[in-house]
Amino acid sequence: MSTTIRSNNYEIFLGNDTFYQIGKFLSKSRSGNSKKFILVDENTKEHCLPLLQGGVLAFQQAVILEIASGEESKSIDVIVNLWKDLTEQGADQQSLLVNLGGGVVSDVGGFTAATFMRGIDFINIPTSLLAMVDASAGGKNGINFGGLKNQVGTFDEPQAVFVSPVFLKTLPEVEMRSGFAEVIKHALISDYKKWSDVKAIENLENVNWFDIIRESIWTKNKIVNSDFRDRHIRKALNFGHTIAHALESYLRKNNSPIKHGEAVAIGMIGETYLSQQVCGLNEKDATEIYQFIRKHYPLTLEFDSDSIIEFMKSDKKNHSEKINFSLNKSIGEPMINQHADEALIRQALEFCKEQLMVVS
Amino acid sequence: MSTTIRSNNYEIFLGNDTFYQIGKFLSKSRSGNSKKFILVDENTKEHCLPLLQGGVLAFQQAVILEIASGEESKSIDVIVNLWKDLTEQGADQQSLLVNLGGGVVSDVGGFTAATFMRGIDFINIPTSLLAMVDASAGGKNGINFGGLKNQVGTFDEPQAVFVSPVFLKTLPEVEMRSGFAEVIKHALISDYKKWSDVKAIENLENVNWFDIIRESIWTKNKIVNSDFRDRHIRKALNFGHTIAHALESYLRKNNSPIKHGEAVAIGMIGETYLSQQVCGLNEKDATEIYQFIRKHYPLTLEFDSDSIIEFMKSDKKNHSEKINFSLNKSIGEPMINQHADEALIRQALEFCKEQLMVVS
Repeated sequence: MSTTIRSNNYEIFLGNDTFYQIGKFLSKSRSGNSKKFILVDENTKEHCLPLLQGGVLAFQQAVILEIASGEESKSIDVIVNLWKDLTEQGADQQSLLVNLGGGVVSDVGGFTAATFMRGIDFINIPTSLLAMVDASAGGKNGINFGGLKNQVGTFDEPQAVFVSPVFLKTLPEVEMRSGFAEVIKHALISDYKKWSDVKAIENLENVNWFDIIRESIWTKNKIVNSDFRDRHIRKALNFGHTIAHALESYLRKNNSPIKHGEAVAIGMIGETYLSQQVCGLNEKDATEIYQFIRKHYPLTLEFDSDSIIEFMKSDKKNHSEKINFSLNKSIGEPMINQHADEALIRQALEFCKEQLMVVS
Repeated sequence: MSTTIRSNNYEIFLGNDTFYQIGKFLSKSRSGNSKKFILVDENTKEHCLPLLQGGVLAFQQAVILEIASGEESKSIDVIVNLWKDLTEQGADQQSLLVNLGGGVVSDVGGFTAATFMRGIDFINIPTSLLAMVDASAGGKNGINFGGLKNQVGTFDEPQAVFVSPVFLKTLPEVEMRSGFAEVIKHALISDYKKWSDVKAIENLENVNWFDIIRESIWTKNKIVNSDFRDRHIRKALNFGHTIAHALESYLRKNNSPIKHGEAVAIGMIGETYLSQQVCGLNEKDATEIYQFIRKHYPLTLEFDSDSIIEFMKSDKKNHSEKINFSLNKSIGEPMINQHADEALIRQALEFCKEQLMVVS
């Protein structure tokens, strides 16, 4: 099975023949004969790089650049080191950077490539479910700065993205669950049909990932292509994320970080609650969302709602100091630039805590 | 007198009514009602900022960000400080950064704006002749890294550029001479008519700058618009610059930096010599170029040709370790991706030294 999804300026190849597609891409690319660099973390170096280099001959001579896995690598210091490595290893304007990994690798590698010599070519080979359904479309990259998530970055599209579900087999369960949150989100902002397909999933070990990933990328890609710079409808993709980003910042500061997708799952509970209060999302759909998330995310978590609200205030999606939410009026009917007062946000956060404590 | 030059995605306003044009721009811009930041150096803060704030009411409440003048500010440390300042001063995605200064200010400010929150709006108000004719079109920004000029940066266009010759009155003579080198370059790669107009200039104190700047921007803008990513014909703008960049790196390392335009003037002597040897530029035109540059650039300079060649080897315009030049077959007939062996490059550099020692 394989398919190609066309983005604004590049193609996303999905399927079991991606290594063949990479070879074909290189033979047509201006970077085909140039020096190649592969960015990995310690996990993708061990589990994914051998597969990739085994399947793509042209990558066997590539220079391997390694960063540590995890959000801590999204820092300017890591970028500075990569600029240094590229310079010292003789990268030129026609070199190619291959980002082999999850969202951190594509964020860091994308920003490095976008800024090195005013931009060298790069391709993304996402290896996590999260990166496959989320980072493969959209052209965003970013690093954290001053304690704020993705405070620095650019919009720059890769030359191509190659999504190979074979890499999912290398993932631990917690990573699958993390990526699944974005699958849920894409379904909720898309339509009832996609939400039914996702809602039918009982167990992440028994899923036709090809279809689920294709539909999820398709939704994201469609939204992104109609608003690349994230000024209008693309903000719909932030559903769940205002709470999630604040929660992640809070928990990172308290040295108990959680996975991005886990934070998004919790954020979707809180923002579904806000969707009910602010946009009139109906009780039945909301209840189904709560139940489904509780089933897949059996989390227990301590947080202080006032501190979370403080983090929300410095979210870069805000304008003129109002906290900005992307909510859903109904399934498939997102509403951007929604606001709630602090009392209501506090209620939503307390509601999250209650929900997470309920055994479903 | 005023005129508007249309670039790919923005307009360059040139004339004596630019303050009025800025007001008009702000009233239509999405950043019109948002927080405004003005980036200055100590010189433009003293000489240009009062003029600008006097002429544009909306800028009187702007937050002023200051960097030190000079190439040293093109560093990642300065960028990090600006990201920090913007964050702390409450910049959001709709904020506007106004770059008021020469090429260093627009390079640093452009890179900061392009990367802060994945890109905020910025406008350039060039205050030096160099920035007016060179940085106003093209959308390049950059910082130096690892001792290499513009090793890091992006292609990002401002929302608008406002060129007000009134600022030229604030400039010392050495700055005028520096900018004039790019005027010469634009004429040489454009056509005989523009070269005749420039060649007729005897004294920089007595020039109709409006016409000269308009023609110079027009040339650059036309080239840039047909090759924004600098892969083909835009490289013609590098005439003189392979030697110039290496010379600047060398002299900076030896703590005796010269102005960019002075380096370009010397570079144009060396690369005119190469144009004769490699592309057959005729003797008569070459001699006129040498004489004209000698007249306007009475420089004496010590450098070691072999060290300069070493710096050239790490120029980011190179591919596959060949030193890349943009030369001229004749006036207005640029030739990109030209190469010369080291012996010939050494000859060209020695020729520069001889020429600079000749009293014209």
